[in-house]
Amino acid sequence: MYFITCPLYLQPTNAHMPLNEFKLIRRIQQQRSPESDQVLIGIGDDTAAVRPTPGMASLVTTDTFVEGLDFDLAFSTWLQIGWKSMAANISDIAAMGGQPRYALTTLCLPDHRTATEIDALYEGMDGLIEQLDLPISIIGGDLSGITGPTVISITLMGEAAPERMLRRSGARVGDCICVTGHLGASEAGLRLLHQTRPPADHTMLKRYAGTVEKHRTPVPRAQEARLLADSGYVSAMIDISDGLSSDLLHIGRSSHVGLSLDVEALPITAETHAAARTLHADPVKLAMQSGEEFELLCTIEPDQVEPLAARLADQTGIALTPIGEVVAESEGFSWYDTSGRHLLIPEGYEHFKSVGE
Amino acid sequence: MYFITCPLYLQPTNAHMPLNEFKLIRRIQQQRSPESDQVLIGIGDDTAAVRPTPGMASLVTTDTFVEGLDFDLAFSTWLQIGWKSMAANISDIAAMGGQPRYALTTLCLPDHRTATEIDALYEGMDGLIEQLDLPISIIGGDLSGITGPTVISITLMGEAAPERMLRRSGARVGDCICVTGHLGASEAGLRLLHQTRPPADHTMLKRYAGTVEKHRTPVPRAQEARLLADSGYVSAMIDISDGLSSDLLHIGRSSHVGLSLDVEALPITAETHAAARTLHADPVKLAMQSGEEFELLCTIEPDQVEPLAARLADQTGIALTPIGEVVAESEGFSWYDTSGRHLLIPEGYEHFKSVGE
Repeated sequence: MYFITCPLYLQPTNAHMPLNEFKLIRRIQQQRSPESDQVLIGIGDDTAAVRPTPGMASLVTTDTFVEGLDFDLAFSTWLQIGWKSMAANISDIAAMGGQPRYALTTLCLPDHRTATEIDALYEGMDGLIEQLDLPISIIGGDLSGITGPTVISITLMGEAAPERMLRRSGARVGDCICVTGHLGASEAGLRLLHQTRPPADHTMLKRYAGTVEKHRTPVPRAQEARLLADSGYVSAMIDISDGLSSDLLHIGRSSHVGLSLDVEALPITAETHAAARTLHADPVKLAMQSGEEFELLCTIEPDQVEPLAARLADQTGIALTPIGEVVAESEGFSWYDTSGRHLLIPEGYEHFKSVGE
Repeated sequence: MYFITCPLYLQPTNAHMPLNEFKLIRRIQQQRSPESDQVLIGIGDDTAAVRPTPGMASLVTTDTFVEGLDFDLAFSTWLQIGWKSMAANISDIAAMGGQPRYALTTLCLPDHRTATEIDALYEGMDGLIEQLDLPISIIGGDLSGITGPTVISITLMGEAAPERMLRRSGARVGDCICVTGHLGASEAGLRLLHQTRPPADHTMLKRYAGTVEKHRTPVPRAQEARLLADSGYVSAMIDISDGLSSDLLHIGRSSHVGLSLDVEALPITAETHAAARTLHADPVKLAMQSGEEFELLCTIEPDQVEPLAARLADQTGIALTPIGEVVAESEGFSWYDTSGRHLLIPEGYEHFKSVGE
């Protein structure tokens, strides 16, 4: 755990100022938003300490982002990288029906990283937290050097009423499968960035600005998740981080049910359709594979879908779209379109590639 | 957050089996000790969820270990690296007077890492948890590839009664400064390993086995910390992870007090003295600088030191040694021996080297 003890004077930001651990921690500490009175000990001791809200379960998740694998400095700014790292963690807590509360941020920084870059990284995290108006305090973390790529690892704690926690394992036969927002844009945005490099084709990136933005600065569905969890009609929920097809299978396998997906119902924006044409890609495949969408995938009692979708649209402006049905486990996992019914297989992202499987 | 959903058959361990994320997670999940009934959701969903013990504060710490900087495969086995990574985190929770409870383990693994190595890493973590008989469940983590060094990042949650938490900031003028166990061995062990490479001088490593073991597999003072915290006579506590001199200054600055250190009282074993002679090193300097000792440094009401030391020796076999005094802030930080009094400066380990300071 890092800590800060030396009352050092902080120099004005200098893009090429070598980093000093204590100074860097003080920067991080000083720039944090005011902390909750539930934070008993924040940055500055062996551990942080928080007072749990009575009756609430403590949630905890962690996600790590490795330069060159999970982010590419040719495609995203440090601000965007900070935003997205925090987004992934917020999305996990939200998908359980929880409220994010406390973050620990660990950075492994090669020698050439500068204070300006680290400032931008935290600015991105803070920007997302502010935009979503979430009560998140950064209460600790660790800093290390590395002779290799930059590594960003965030641990996020949250709280949820135990009876309202939404697991992957709660889907029931007959439930309707629904998804928030739109699909395919994160993967399409990434491919556009790859295709226009180098140099960046700014006209194309501008034409598909919404698609590229979904890749760079996705907004996790924190408010939407709380509304869905509080309704009491959602039986299972997960955020789409590995890709729709993979995450659907996570629900199916955890819940011991089968799934039938209507791919013609998948919500895909006109812009993503156009981007797919430019990329010579199948928009449905994009929607099935696209990871890091941070949309919510959930199963809902069928007669509650319409009223819930109406409330969601009204209160958050985000669509809730029915895309299939939970069926008996014996019926397996399938998707269908006008051409017929097909086996649903995971096509999302996996860090370690499988062999002989 | 990682998760495991695919009910895959696990192949027998093969040292050169390429790693598959889902299989690896299942290995980690299957090999875990039985979980506490306070774990509502362990490995296998978007987040883990635990039920906090009513009235207790939640503690959280995180420490990251980068291959080539924080550990060296020439000096330590994967089992020893797993042990030590967990030791550092346990030590932080213990130093607050807390009980460690839940761990998240994040690994960034280059392609050439094998399942056997990862098994050994977890065996090391489990070995320490078992030796100390601590109620720690591994409830989550993340796995990533990396084109660079192996990174191990552990987040450990714990619990403590808020009124019993021991901060760095509680030291009072007149308190006695005490330390558990012995000092200098971790640094001496590391230097011995460096000096005997290559090839390893097994005779020398055998002669100084205790010293080398303190570097490779330190045992955090979990039981001792609880006894000290429960006594009610300890005003401030920290674990020695950066080195005695640095960690003393952390207490001094956080508590707004001065410190007077009697270096001739520093507990250094005969073996470490002998190792220092072999290394042509000053044993006192070793004791002042040695990081990752994971001994406890604390301040205690003077008339309680003897009875507390007696109880500690009786119940845990570990010595508690008075090494100085808390003085007024205006007296600053100093150490003394027969030659006189000197300024105490931090000589411990810092990840980012300072400039112009």
